[in-house]
Amino acid sequence: MTVVKTINEVRQFVKEARLKGMTIGFVPTMGFLHEGHLSLMREAKAQTDYVVVSIFVNPTQFGPTEDLATYPRDLPRDQMLCESVGVDLIFAPEVDEMYPAGHSTIVDCEGPITKQLCGASRPTHFKGVTSVVAKLFNITLPDKAFFGQKDAQQVAVIEKMVKELNFDVEIVPCPIVREEDGLAMSSRNSYLDAEARRQALVLSQSLNAAKASIDAGETRVSELIALIRETIQQAPMAEIDYVQIVDATTLLAIDELNDDTLIALAVKFGKTRLIDNLRIRRR
Amino acid sequence: MTVVKTINEVRQFVKEARLKGMTIGFVPTMGFLHEGHLSLMREAKAQTDYVVVSIFVNPTQFGPTEDLATYPRDLPRDQMLCESVGVDLIFAPEVDEMYPAGHSTIVDCEGPITKQLCGASRPTHFKGVTSVVAKLFNITLPDKAFFGQKDAQQVAVIEKMVKELNFDVEIVPCPIVREEDGLAMSSRNSYLDAEARRQALVLSQSLNAAKASIDAGETRVSELIALIRETIQQAPMAEIDYVQIVDATTLLAIDELNDDTLIALAVKFGKTRLIDNLRIRRR
Repeated sequence: MTVVKTINEVRQFVKEARLKGMTIGFVPTMGFLHEGHLSLMREAKAQTDYVVVSIFVNPTQFGPTEDLATYPRDLPRDQMLCESVGVDLIFAPEVDEMYPAGHSTIVDCEGPITKQLCGASRPTHFKGVTSVVAKLFNITLPDKAFFGQKDAQQVAVIEKMVKELNFDVEIVPCPIVREEDGLAMSSRNSYLDAEARRQALVLSQSLNAAKASIDAGETRVSELIALIRETIQQAPMAEIDYVQIVDATTLLAIDELNDDTLIALAVKFGKTRLIDNLRIRRR
Repeated sequence: MTVVKTINEVRQFVKEARLKGMTIGFVPTMGFLHEGHLSLMREAKAQTDYVVVSIFVNPTQFGPTEDLATYPRDLPRDQMLCESVGVDLIFAPEVDEMYPAGHSTIVDCEGPITKQLCGASRPTHFKGVTSVVAKLFNITLPDKAFFGQKDAQQVAVIEKMVKELNFDVEIVPCPIVREEDGLAMSSRNSYLDAEARRQALVLSQSLNAAKASIDAGETRVSELIALIRETIQQAPMAEIDYVQIVDATTLLAIDELNDDTLIALAVKFGKTRLIDNLRIRRR
């Protein structure tokens, strides 16, 4: 496994792999890797020949009051984990390498898809995401890129960007990986103290309750949202940011479950904001 | 020469050329080709193996009151001209192919580089340009792309976008091509009646006057701008949009000529807005 810090080195290694006829898989991360990230890398390894992982805490996707400074980082541990699943190349640039002085070019999916859900409380977040992912795609030129469904809105936004800017990249969304007790894995789980960690179980529990209700025939969005909110509110520390049920592609609000629905929620425990979601496909 | 209308066809032809080991040159145009465009294609042909030309009147770079509807079009003639200089592939998509319903992803160089000069009177123009060029780069994946220095600000903006979004494309700016009497070639020259066409000569004449003054030792921007304005105002139909002297890379205003200066101007003759410029490199 190779670890590089510059764009030119990435280009060189990727070109060498291409010349050998290898396909390129790409997994963008902000590091502090957990089993969720590793599942993406294993999938990349299964589907492509040469797997590139970026580890970059991208400042432009954090709002001014968010946790950029405290976001957890552990590159030595991340490297070991990447090596353990057979990653070929890590790209771990400094901020200056990605954003030299004067940098001002952005990519933005304008309209409701980035303004709903997490976009409502994080108004510049997805512009930061699409801008850095566009850069990383141009740097790594992958055949396939792997994203976790945990960030369901991110997947929808990236899929829209890829389609509308005509990137020749296949986006492969991968299932949410959960702790044994159901909490969706996230680097931000490390912020939780023991009590918050225990109470955070209401996120997955509320989605399970919604799933059970849907399996029993419920299709009304208002009823499902009420059920989810009630479940979450059983945790005294939980402060709901949003609970929404939307079309999984457009992320626009719906009244009744449709063919491909996303149930998404964000809940704060103290300063820690956690997200979780459930996708419901019906024929 | 092949002419295609779909993105998938372009990808296929470009991939076939790549498999043969050919390098790809790309010349984006809005059609109604003139000698300026042909000079770009000849340069592309000289520097690369397989030359792709796009012919697409991009609606997103026109303002609401601009000449999108009347912009001149003549695809059969354009095809003949492309063939005459050895173009390999023409991509002439319909608007729907480039912007399907719901399209909202944009690329923008934020800040003064797109707000100065033409950006002042055409506030959304460069956002439209960078967005469509990003799409076209992703569709054609060229080694080199060729742009006319006639659109000096466009070249500066595209170079910034390529650098900041890490496109693996070399931008090759090519010299302005002029009519025998000095008027810079432009598809919009076709709008001019005989009298306006005659008076439009003041554009190149004003730049020549500035050049002569610089050769004689003038370095003060204010003096040069005054000289250019006086020359243009000798044409009674001329209505100056701007005359500016800026750093050629940042497009920021300067007081004295520097190492790489751009003198740029836009002048309206009736409804027809013409631009011209002169780049002054000094050691």
